[in-house]
Amino acid sequence: MTQLLKGKEVADALTERLQNQTAELQRRGVKPCLTIVRVGENDSDLSYERGAMKRAEKVGVTVKQYIFEETISQEELLGGIEEINEDASIHGVLIFQPLPKQIDDAAVRKALRPEKDVDGITEGSLAGIFTGTHRGFAPCTARACMEILDHYGIDLIGKRVAVLGRSLVIGKPVAMMVMEKNGTVTVCHSKTGKEAMIEICQNSDVLIAAMGRAAMIDKSYVKAGQTVIDVGINVNEEGKLCGDVDFDSVSPLCGAITPVPGGVGAVTTAVLMLQVIEAAKLSV
Amino acid sequence: MTQLLKGKEVADALTERLQNQTAELQRRGVKPCLTIVRVGENDSDLSYERGAMKRAEKVGVTVKQYIFEETISQEELLGGIEEINEDASIHGVLIFQPLPKQIDDAAVRKALRPEKDVDGITEGSLAGIFTGTHRGFAPCTARACMEILDHYGIDLIGKRVAVLGRSLVIGKPVAMMVMEKNGTVTVCHSKTGKEAMIEICQNSDVLIAAMGRAAMIDKSYVKAGQTVIDVGINVNEEGKLCGDVDFDSVSPLCGAITPVPGGVGAVTTAVLMLQVIEAAKLSV
Repeated sequence: MTQLLKGKEVADALTERLQNQTAELQRRGVKPCLTIVRVGENDSDLSYERGAMKRAEKVGVTVKQYIFEETISQEELLGGIEEINEDASIHGVLIFQPLPKQIDDAAVRKALRPEKDVDGITEGSLAGIFTGTHRGFAPCTARACMEILDHYGIDLIGKRVAVLGRSLVIGKPVAMMVMEKNGTVTVCHSKTGKEAMIEICQNSDVLIAAMGRAAMIDKSYVKAGQTVIDVGINVNEEGKLCGDVDFDSVSPLCGAITPVPGGVGAVTTAVLMLQVIEAAKLSV
Repeated sequence: MTQLLKGKEVADALTERLQNQTAELQRRGVKPCLTIVRVGENDSDLSYERGAMKRAEKVGVTVKQYIFEETISQEELLGGIEEINEDASIHGVLIFQPLPKQIDDAAVRKALRPEKDVDGITEGSLAGIFTGTHRGFAPCTARACMEILDHYGIDLIGKRVAVLGRSLVIGKPVAMMVMEKNGTVTVCHSKTGKEAMIEICQNSDVLIAAMGRAAMIDKSYVKAGQTVIDVGINVNEEGKLCGDVDFDSVSPLCGAITPVPGGVGAVTTAVLMLQVIEAAKLSV
């Protein structure tokens, strides 16, 4: 029987662990606080924000909101970031991107202190992932993949892992995290070629799909017993939400698989809280 | 016939190109300058320094030396770095590591400006490699591998590349550079297991060996026509210099191979000069 790797189960377990940690921090007089920086009223930002706030409440993390008009100037926004940097009561920051076109995203990322960068967008965080020094934090979705594997007891030591996609948000950081767990990682991308990609996937124990291409991975890529982590969130031709993996084709064959929706995406806000709490611990 | 990928040929071609560039910079009033920071009189540091100074003279790069006693304090050394940071006539810096035990290497790396970090040791440089933004510079040996492939017209687009070793000096940065050239990279390491490593190497078009284990890679890892880049510099049981690749076993089978000595190591000082000149160009 194929095991369904449900995100909710991982998020619930994480939430319970984090509740204990916030209670413990509270006793020491520390109230973990996340600040959300949002410019404008983008629907998907608002939806993620609602999810994050619900999760924060459950876990015992305070949320402060910095909400700006779509027309904000670069100077004002950087002023806000500076205020957040200096505010010792704020431990972690989530900045929704992309920002409006009058704003230089890179300048905003540069302004944020890596110590508060719980969404892994600063150079300091990315360097920390690359070097394994754990300065700053990983992008939440990349870490969510690792939390799922960890929760279900899927060890990576000496395992072959195929990462499909080389973005800075998933592919590259997840490859580094796999390496840190002593897995042997191959990073495939648009230039890899279908034949090679099939061969690489077939020879892997774990497959992490993050290409952003709806249902691209069918059973021809998969071998029996394999673990499949599907990071994709796409809308297919029928207007239905689907992953990068063709679930109906792959799930009868593989050993374990994350559904979409209800897989990786369901873990990200819990990971965000985990990182806020880690930041709060490091601040004391 | 197996092609011998000679480092000298690459270094000579690079030197000629760089001579033209320093002449052009000179006409614009810019004299590219490398500063070497050495603490104590370590033999291998002195030997590399001599090589670098010879190469600098050929290319038309000025060298300044900051030489400190083995007993230098952290404060004094950081003072020297600060002076170098502020000196607009200095474009690139090479700091020999490891430093004596009273010195915190990490603090020294942190003090150096990534813009002058032509040896790729700062967090800024490593983040630049990871993100592909080219802030700072790559470690010279990692880039030397890429310069060799480039010089001999070995294109990586859609090719399979096995990187053996996951160090911050070679394995990880070279993997990122391969990805940037649109190659499909697998990073093997001590936990990969011999059987898997043989299979991965056999399925690769290019093999970059940087494990630091004398003559570990024999013909069982190699397929006909493969390109083999040997980054290892080891001393074998007979006291002879040798690479990570067993040259006599592998060279009759593969398509192209770098010798040791005379391969990657022969290119590093030319790459160092290349990066000093790039830093000088960016400074104007």
